[in-house]
Amino acid sequence: MQENITAAILIIGNEILSGKTQDVNVQYIAQNLSEMGIALKEVRVVADIKSDIVFAVNELRHKYAYLFTTGGIGPTHDDITAESVASAFDLKLEQDHEALEIMQSRYLAMGREMHPASYKMAEMPVGAELILNNVSGAPGFSLENVYVMAGIPDIMRGMFDWLKSKLKTGRQYISKGLLVDAGESSIAKLLQSLNDQFPLLDMGSYPFQDSAGIWHTNLIIRGQDHENITLAFIRLKEILSAENIIYREI
Amino acid sequence: MQENITAAILIIGNEILSGKTQDVNVQYIAQNLSEMGIALKEVRVVADIKSDIVFAVNELRHKYAYLFTTGGIGPTHDDITAESVASAFDLKLEQDHEALEIMQSRYLAMGREMHPASYKMAEMPVGAELILNNVSGAPGFSLENVYVMAGIPDIMRGMFDWLKSKLKTGRQYISKGLLVDAGESSIAKLLQSLNDQFPLLDMGSYPFQDSAGIWHTNLIIRGQDHENITLAFIRLKEILSAENIIYREI
Repeated sequence: MQENITAAILIIGNEILSGKTQDVNVQYIAQNLSEMGIALKEVRVVADIKSDIVFAVNELRHKYAYLFTTGGIGPTHDDITAESVASAFDLKLEQDHEALEIMQSRYLAMGREMHPASYKMAEMPVGAELILNNVSGAPGFSLENVYVMAGIPDIMRGMFDWLKSKLKTGRQYISKGLLVDAGESSIAKLLQSLNDQFPLLDMGSYPFQDSAGIWHTNLIIRGQDHENITLAFIRLKEILSAENIIYREI
Repeated sequence: MQENITAAILIIGNEILSGKTQDVNVQYIAQNLSEMGIALKEVRVVADIKSDIVFAVNELRHKYAYLFTTGGIGPTHDDITAESVASAFDLKLEQDHEALEIMQSRYLAMGREMHPASYKMAEMPVGAELILNNVSGAPGFSLENVYVMAGIPDIMRGMFDWLKSKLKTGRQYISKGLLVDAGESSIAKLLQSLNDQFPLLDMGSYPFQDSAGIWHTNLIIRGQDHENITLAFIRLKEILSAENIIYREI
């Protein structure tokens, strides 16, 4: 029996909730977790409000094996993720000497002095471990099963790529898909019977309308059992062919 | 004192959590709520798992004035939003006659008979009210403060646009922004002092690196108090000019 490694993402940022910014961090992390065999079970977006962050961090870190947060670790007044995570764990915030050294040496290499406001970015909950990245000098941090990363997509990716090797992994999730020339209702019964035969696989159907207004459906079979996905996929194509439904692999 | 109308969005869909699909519904709803003066406080994404949907619906509908859900109201086995919302309210699911009539007349107009699987889309919690749309025949529904919409972006937009006039509205959120030729640390103190002068406004700073590797920052002032936003924006430009920091309006 395979262990099911679960995860959640917490996006901290008013800019997503105001509709100003389109989040792109969820998809990057989700695709990576999928490859790593980690089941992303939930995503939340909350505002830069301490009580909201503390509540979400505590609910999610207890519910799932991993919690990844993005956003709110910069030097400005609205960057309150570090102090909120410290509160969630009932820990003090302190200047992390290793983080400070990394930041200072980076400024030095650029021939500049570290800006006073940047010191805030080295403040972390007591006992936190650093998450490094190559894009900016300022590290993120982890505390138990919570991984605190930047919100800027390039830096977040740098941090996530850095910490990947430190996470437990499971069997990779893979998926196979068909584009079917039929609406969802026409294939609902077929898909149900196929799902009954392969109950551990995730079968999703995603209808869409083409420019001529005709409905098509993407059928996706996904899971960790690669052999059964292959079998189910063959079976799906047989069923569709028997019903004279046109499809192509995607 | 203005009433603060709050809202949350619940995205129901494995396809977002697997990283296959980039969500675009949040931004559409967020931008609309912002214009309507409704404060979007939280977004969640959960899988097509009944217990997860029930938990999220119950937590969010009690916490915020409005809850908007998207996804999981199609005809296939993985579409379990209606039954999950019924469970969350401890209500039975029943065939909604009005929904059925709307769907049947639409099929009739297309000269086709309604597919048996489509009947599932007319099943709604007892007492639900319909949310219509012009893109597909199948309606969404609302129950108390919960608004259940399709996941397909075109249909979701049709539904949201239809129900907009039924929601309470507040004073529109507006925002003004500057692109500043400086990193976040250089302006952190200025921004903090400005925020202290205008504590009810939301001031965000969003740094980004240009193609030459130079850091810039977008400063956004946002809120419902249009007069104070104008004042704060003038003050911000004065402060930046006094510090010889280059900026332009965005």
